[in-house]
Amino acid sequence: MSSTYGKLFKISTFGESHGAAVGVILDGCPAGIDFDMEFIQSELDRRKPGQSRITTQRREADEFQVLSGTFEGKTTGTPIAMMVWNGDQRSKDYSHIAQQFRPSHADFTYHVKYGGNRDYRGGGRSSARETVARVAAGAVAKLILKQIGVDIKAYVSQVGKLKLETPYQQLDLAEAENNAVRCPDAAMAQQMFDYIDETRKKGDSIGGIVDCVITGTPAGLGEPVFDKLHAELGKAMLSINAVKGFEYGSGFAGVEMFGSEHNDEIYLEDGVAKTKTNYSGGIQGGISNGADIYFRTAFKPVATIMQDQESIDAEGNPVIVSGKGRHDPCVVPRAVPIVEAMAALVLVDFYMRNKAIQ
Amino acid sequence: MSSTYGKLFKISTFGESHGAAVGVILDGCPAGIDFDMEFIQSELDRRKPGQSRITTQRREADEFQVLSGTFEGKTTGTPIAMMVWNGDQRSKDYSHIAQQFRPSHADFTYHVKYGGNRDYRGGGRSSARETVARVAAGAVAKLILKQIGVDIKAYVSQVGKLKLETPYQQLDLAEAENNAVRCPDAAMAQQMFDYIDETRKKGDSIGGIVDCVITGTPAGLGEPVFDKLHAELGKAMLSINAVKGFEYGSGFAGVEMFGSEHNDEIYLEDGVAKTKTNYSGGIQGGISNGADIYFRTAFKPVATIMQDQESIDAEGNPVIVSGKGRHDPCVVPRAVPIVEAMAALVLVDFYMRNKAIQ
Amino acid sequence: MSSTYGKLFKISTFGESHGAAVGVILDGCPAGIDFDMEFIQSELDRRKPGQSRITTQRREADEFQVLSGTFEGKTTGTPIAMMVWNGDQRSKDYSHIAQQFRPSHADFTYHVKYGGNRDYRGGGRSSARETVARVAAGAVAKLILKQIGVDIKAYVSQVGKLKLETPYQQLDLAEAENNAVRCPDAAMAQQMFDYIDETRKKGDSIGGIVDCVITGTPAGLGEPVFDKLHAELGKAMLSINAVKGFEYGSGFAGVEMFGSEHNDEIYLEDGVAKTKTNYSGGIQGGISNGADIYFRTAFKPVATIMQDQESIDAEGNPVIVSGKGRHDPCVVPRAVPIVEAMAALVLVDFYMRNKAIQ
Amino acid sequence: MSSTYGKLFKISTFGESHGAAVGVILDGCPAGIDFDMEFIQSELDRRKPGQSRITTQRREADEFQVLSGTFEGKTTGTPIAMMVWNGDQRSKDYSHIAQQFRPSHADFTYHVKYGGNRDYRGGGRSSARETVARVAAGAVAKLILKQIGVDIKAYVSQVGKLKLETPYQQLDLAEAENNAVRCPDAAMAQQMFDYIDETRKKGDSIGGIVDCVITGTPAGLGEPVFDKLHAELGKAMLSINAVKGFEYGSGFAGVEMFGSEHNDEIYLEDGVAKTKTNYSGGIQGGISNGADIYFRTAFKPVATIMQDQESIDAEGNPVIVSGKGRHDPCVVPRAVPIVEAMAALVLVDFYMRNKAIQ
Repeated sequence: MSSTYGKLFKISTFGESHGAAVGVILDGCPAGIDFDMEFIQSELDRRKPGQSRITTQRREADEFQVLSGTFEGKTTGTPIAMMVWNGDQRSKDYSHIAQQFRPSHADFTYHVKYGGNRDYRGGGRSSARETVARVAAGAVAKLILKQIGVDIKAYVSQVGKLKLETPYQQLDLAEAENNAVRCPDAAMAQQMFDYIDETRKKGDSIGGIVDCVITGTPAGLGEPVFDKLHAELGKAMLSINAVKGFEYGSGFAGVEMFGSEHNDEIYLEDGVAKTKTNYSGGIQGGISNGADIYFRTAFKPVATIMQDQESIDAEGNPVIVSGKGRHDPCVVPRAVPIVEAMAALVLVDFYMRNKAIQ
Repeated sequence: MSSTYGKLFKISTFGESHGAAVGVILDGCPAGIDFDMEFIQSELDRRKPGQSRITTQRREADEFQVLSGTFEGKTTGTPIAMMVWNGDQRSKDYSHIAQQFRPSHADFTYHVKYGGNRDYRGGGRSSARETVARVAAGAVAKLILKQIGVDIKAYVSQVGKLKLETPYQQLDLAEAENNAVRCPDAAMAQQMFDYIDETRKKGDSIGGIVDCVITGTPAGLGEPVFDKLHAELGKAMLSINAVKGFEYGSGFAGVEMFGSEHNDEIYLEDGVAKTKTNYSGGIQGGISNGADIYFRTAFKPVATIMQDQESIDAEGNPVIVSGKGRHDPCVVPRAVPIVEAMAALVLVDFYMRNKAIQ
Repeated sequence: MSSTYGKLFKISTFGESHGAAVGVILDGCPAGIDFDMEFIQSELDRRKPGQSRITTQRREADEFQVLSGTFEGKTTGTPIAMMVWNGDQRSKDYSHIAQQFRPSHADFTYHVKYGGNRDYRGGGRSSARETVARVAAGAVAKLILKQIGVDIKAYVSQVGKLKLETPYQQLDLAEAENNAVRCPDAAMAQQMFDYIDETRKKGDSIGGIVDCVITGTPAGLGEPVFDKLHAELGKAMLSINAVKGFEYGSGFAGVEMFGSEHNDEIYLEDGVAKTKTNYSGGIQGGISNGADIYFRTAFKPVATIMQDQESIDAEGNPVIVSGKGRHDPCVVPRAVPIVEAMAALVLVDFYMRNKAIQ
Repeated sequence: MSSTYGKLFKISTFGESHGAAVGVILDGCPAGIDFDMEFIQSELDRRKPGQSRITTQRREADEFQVLSGTFEGKTTGTPIAMMVWNGDQRSKDYSHIAQQFRPSHADFTYHVKYGGNRDYRGGGRSSARETVARVAAGAVAKLILKQIGVDIKAYVSQVGKLKLETPYQQLDLAEAENNAVRCPDAAMAQQMFDYIDETRKKGDSIGGIVDCVITGTPAGLGEPVFDKLHAELGKAMLSINAVKGFEYGSGFAGVEMFGSEHNDEIYLEDGVAKTKTNYSGGIQGGISNGADIYFRTAFKPVATIMQDQESIDAEGNPVIVSGKGRHDPCVVPRAVPIVEAMAALVLVDFYMRNKAIQ
């Protein structure tokens, strides 16, 4: 139940970090979409480990395979199954934590929830490796959004205390893909890179923020009451590993504003309703208004560090957990395509829900 | 589809601000729960308008009626329908906005989504009046949680720039119910009250933050991957009117921390696993670890203000929208029971999901 | 969970036989539909008790009230809540069965499932009174189907051993509404009426079959694999009280045929693909092919009879249950509008699902 | 959306007849279940083609592979992905029907629904090959049911006009697995075998009926109103390829009975409530009463025959479709494990739903 997402454009993911494979079934995809395998692979490549020395050095080719749902290069409307075999599994790296609970990981909570039955290797199901499945499915969603002119761009806006203060409107977001950090400001990107690298050398980790901007969205996406567009985007982002917070439009800063400042006055331009400001982040009453959709997602420092920490084992004995394995000192660079993928899945779902009632 | 929430403990709400009634069907409630009608009414009273001069002066008794699902004072396991008739409807207050789009309201987006078919009176379905239904159902959830020792307390921690910096552990949260603002620090509450009242006199509105602390939760609530406990709490909070952001545990502040600071080391106390710190906010890998669950929800300044604003009408003509009607200058005092209600609904649902797999 | 039906055009029903009210929330209805209250009431009138001396003599006006989701005579796209107050409640008629389990009723199974918490009066939630909610929502579905030229007609084809053998193509189905049995053959209707009346006088009950024909359906409704059109129709029919079986097209008789007889050969007529025969009942691979959809639903003799029967009470003591109250000796005449309502709900749901993917 | 089944114990299937693979994700399986791979494979072997000369001569090893969700021989509570590679694909067998619509197949309806995008080879997604996925997941469900003493046995009770009239109580159902037809009466099985073989030689096909008996079910499974136990069983059976009808307990025959005959009187035996008769088929008000659950499923003659038939092609031209490929002249022998698998999935789901509310 918990591994399915979406109402109409629905993904079900499977796989553990060190099991046989990770993958996804995408059910509800319309027929006749050009199934651009190169594009899907390129999205997976943006997520894969080993892209630079500030990401984990695990070598995973992450070449995906499609098992169903396409025929002669197009989708057929039936479930699309995609999978990636788990390659570079150094499972013995984990044998030392088989019975230990790593601090701020899911080891303890899975242990309790599943009565001691868990694949401890690399975090098992709680590993961010599961996001391979999301990115593959999200790439298909992007192919659909491209057809209707919707574009999603995420980028790193903060690493530790290093903040990119420039509003997104003044940035060339495409620039983000030109550096290892995925920050669209080259100078800031370099600072962030150095900072992450330094953190890595100390065997530590650091948090960060990913901003996301969606342009070209038609007005009317999102549903009243519970399935508000931003509520669903929020859930989607919060479901990504290591996320601690979500805000859209004015977000937390908006609480300090007066209504008279915060309200987005409306005017007509070339027959289209526009707003003078966009504190709403493109969403009013849970429904898109045609302005840019803008939101921010906060990631904590990843829990795996190369330092000794106190904890207990499954029997309750105190233990010292010492970091081993190969991990990201900061997840945000690789989180960028994941944020985009989840946003794409949310949008296509609402787009289809809208068509259903029209 | 959009007016239903929950998988096992499921609510479906209905009603517009100025229609006949608002209400809810709660499906999936276990049988044999003492249906404490006084408690449910008392929760509705915490939400109702007119509690002080800093909330809207609409007079709504909000007396609820139960139509089904209980027998001889206990729940029977069948759907519980509860409703509140809409009383003090001054619908003519709204005739002036029938064809106008109030800035930062849902008028424009509903108009587009539903092809011009909308009940414009008081915002119709987009009105916060819908939350009557949530509070009624949430009260039933609270009755269930009480049985298993779970307690949910929300309070106002910020209004505009006025912040209560004291950590919740050092506050007497029960104190929050002793003032109109629902801030557990009496002095700060008075400042906030004056500030809101001042804002009201200027015909303006202001935002705020509601914190929520859940104690007594067993470890193991929440699901891996998409239905993480904090993802579901986030969606639930973001689905409340005027919410702009959600964070749990260390939240946005956590991004500036190192893993070595942020990780919550584990130790055993009286046979129970505890953490030295709680940056995780009681949730690890999407699953509760038994520590206090702690999250914060940001509310924007409400869109209705008593000042003139520029907008357009349904024909695209420029119009001046001038505020009328009776509204809250700051929503957070009345949002407190709503936050608690949604949290209760989320928790009971996960509690039931857990029982299903055990 | 169990009182909700539909994916996109979704109903949630509530209410017990002798509680305050029965009702329904219809969520997902498109905006802008003319909300024809007279038509909805007329459908409820077809279902209501007391229509003739062969139906129960309970007097229930069953006048419905709409609480939300419409404005100025049209649907608004928000949840439509409709309810009927329970009027003629002779609850004391049931006090004698408070602790007894009536044979072949749901008394025992509800007792076990809900740990003894149940509203025993008139069967509580298990009463066919719940179908008021289905018929009201189904009437809205019919309003939508009318717009796209789909027509649903059900009729009684069998009562006890009395079978109407004439194929539906040779009947004037509208004729069914001209007699109390709802059989489109007047002579057979009279025989059935007399037979039911005779059964009633003996204090007994008898079963029957309702046939249903849907014309004007576009090809393409229904989904592959699990949500096949006939699987969903089957579930919808089997969810009606007293139903024991469902078949479509050739049905059970089809098992005795050879493929060479049973296959429906295809030809083109005026540019439209047609089939020479229709053993498929208008559905192939779970998807409508544009031919008439045809199915049959079997109803058992209702369990309430005016005769003494052996059973046990909640303590396990043997008891004699003697029939009291006012009941239908044969449910099929009043089941006709219920069958149509459920079919309408299923079709609109699939129609909307189809639009979502196109 | 349509390829997912179940609320709590949920399967999502994928795969086309001649694509790369067929498979399933089973989500919601409790942790700690012994994952008996031999048993699962043995269930798949009961379904696989080529078991005798009366089943299709395709050679598919159907060896399944598990990709996730188990660890050290036990389930972990995370999604279990299982798949079977499609081996013996003679895709060129189907090139002749690429643009033709085979009568009573899903060719035409898929063509219309998906705008001409379909994998025509072997019926693509509409092929009964999809049931590999159901049987694999159903085998896991059976492992769970075994732990609580529930046993499911299906068998062939009719082929064409050949009917086994003996009630199941007088049969040794285990006997069904000793012959190729899966009929528990050896003499009748031989007659059926000869009849199917004869039909096969004529290039024709014939229908049949599968009965199913479930013993050991606790009282209380199933939900009121829409998700009645028999409604869900009905949907599950009707979702199997070639099914035309479903009945439980007295079924269609029950309509000819009087209530005074049909009602199952209740008595106490060794402290357990029992019924003198079981026309209810073990289900009252949609909820199991602890008696044997008994239902019957009707299968049409399969559409693929080795004879010429008239049809049209995608351009609307008349064509003669001549049967090629390797097919089953009668599906019921291989349908037996599929019926059992679907029944097992339904039961485990309701079992888990029951635990959730207790």
